Amino acid sequence: MGGSLALALRPHIQHLTLVDHDPSTLENAAPLADTVTTDFAAGVRECDLVILATPVRVILDLLPRLPQARPQGCFVLDMGSTKQAIGAAMNQLPPTFATLGGHPMCGKTQGGFLAADPDLYRGRIFVLCPTEHTTPDLLAIARQLVAWIGGRPILLPAAAHDAIVAATSHLPYLVAANLMGVVAAAAASNPSVYPVSANGLWDSTRLAASDPAMMLDILLTNQTEVVPRLDEAIAGLQQVRQLLTEQDAAALHHWLRQRQQERQTYTESRHALDHLSS
Amino acid sequence: MGGSLALALRPHIQHLTLVDHDPSTLENAAPLADTVTTDFAAGVRECDLVILATPVRVILDLLPRLPQARPQGCFVLDMGSTKQAIGAAMNQLPPTFATLGGHPMCGKTQGGFLAADPDLYRGRIFVLCPTEHTTPDLLAIARQLVAWIGGRPILLPAAAHDAIVAATSHLPYLVAANLMGVVAAAAASNPSVYPVSANGLWDSTRLAASDPAMMLDILLTNQTEVVPRLDEAIAGLQQVRQLLTEQDAAALHHWLRQRQQERQTYTESRHALDHLSS
Repeated sequence: MGGSLALALRPHIQHLTLVDHDPSTLENAAPLADTVTTDFAAGVRECDLVILATPVRVILDLLPRLPQARPQGCFVLDMGSTKQAIGAAMNQLPPTFATLGGHPMCGKTQGGFLAADPDLYRGRIFVLCPTEHTTPDLLAIARQLVAWIGGRPILLPAAAHDAIVAATSHLPYLVAANLMGVVAAAAASNPSVYPVSANGLWDSTRLAASDPAMMLDILLTNQTEVVPRLDEAIAGLQQVRQLLTEQDAAALHHWLRQRQQERQTYTESRHALDHLSS
Repeated sequence: MGGSLALALRPHIQHLTLVDHDPSTLENAAPLADTVTTDFAAGVRECDLVILATPVRVILDLLPRLPQARPQGCFVLDMGSTKQAIGAAMNQLPPTFATLGGHPMCGKTQGGFLAADPDLYRGRIFVLCPTEHTTPDLLAIARQLVAWIGGRPILLPAAAHDAIVAATSHLPYLVAANLMGVVAAAAASNPSVYPVSANGLWDSTRLAASDPAMMLDILLTNQTEVVPRLDEAIAGLQQVRQLLTEQDAAALHHWLRQRQQERQTYTESRHALDHLSS
């Protein structure tokens, strides 16, 4: 995400410093940047705008280090996948730091700078979550930044964001990972399982490939929103299990048709959104 | 499925008769065929090989009509998504009918002849399930047919097939449909839900668009295999829910990493299979 952002922003940025804990990532990214460093404090020392694009827990570790590393303050934007915990940490910073939460509706299961793509954000919703220290200047900068990378900004309170992505992102991840577990258990004792599968299984389990460390941070910082969605998913599977064991063809058909219609509504909503962005 | 098969087989077939209950489908397909009819009995009257490519329950309805429609007998192949019930019905036919179950590992959520694609079967596994009345001649014909359409035949007992697809196809469908239901409920009260979603939700719910009538037949004829897989999926979600509510970071990370590794194993298995077919 950070590499893709750096690629997309490069034409618009006067001085670009890239900070990463992994020297090999910096080596790959070095031709793009004016400065590269593994030292967070050195990297932010003279920054006008710091963009934190790491797993949520790393953002929560880095934010309290800003006042010492950059005593004059600066603009701070983050790209973390949950926003309430980060927003609360941002509110603890001195008021010399103008802060804003950000979360683009895109991603890659493959990480690292070599997988970076400057078009990753093109046409995508980019959620901005104001904090207590969001200034009009920072909001204008963030809107300009999102415009440069081809994204489409929308403003949402952090709590509203976290409630939505629990349903649209975190639950789908857990459901995909869990499905992968069930099928892998079957495959472990039968070598024909994976050959006798089609694109449906492939697409349905793609999210299981997501980075576990990143997902762990997301789940732990959004537990209160994710658990109720998990409970709904469990209840739904229990309901369809009952219809199936009762061989209740009419009720089962009705349940399946409702889900198909919901997918149709979702498809239309997505096409309308794509149309707006083109 | 039937339209795609007809397109792929046409160059190899001397006389092609297409039977469909829907006159508009036949109108679209007419240029391809020598004969089109909505009358099943008329369609099969002089056939050497009948290929039944309909939802499972329709295949179960059509099979017992064959002896009267085609008294001399013929070769019979089906493309139904579950194989045990169809195999049992095939075994009830007079021995003048040589029968074989078939199930290609591909599909389209969009039906109708206009969505037909002659390359649908290319590189795909095509499962063949022998019945009590499978003859060497029919098996040779089926292998030739699969070769013509670019598929890769594998032989499996009907029970083994049904057990596998419960895990690789029917459970993924139910899981996707159920996920769609949970997210649609959230979207019903909040217009930001679908805009604040990414490709993960899109891919994870794709199977929910499948034809409910087709899926109903599949689920009802494979209930004994699907319910245990559903129970495993429910148990898995309950387990991850517990890890999440206990905030057990180490155990949750382990669970997520296992699922990621399983997806990696599945990916490698799929690439090895693609490599074999190219």
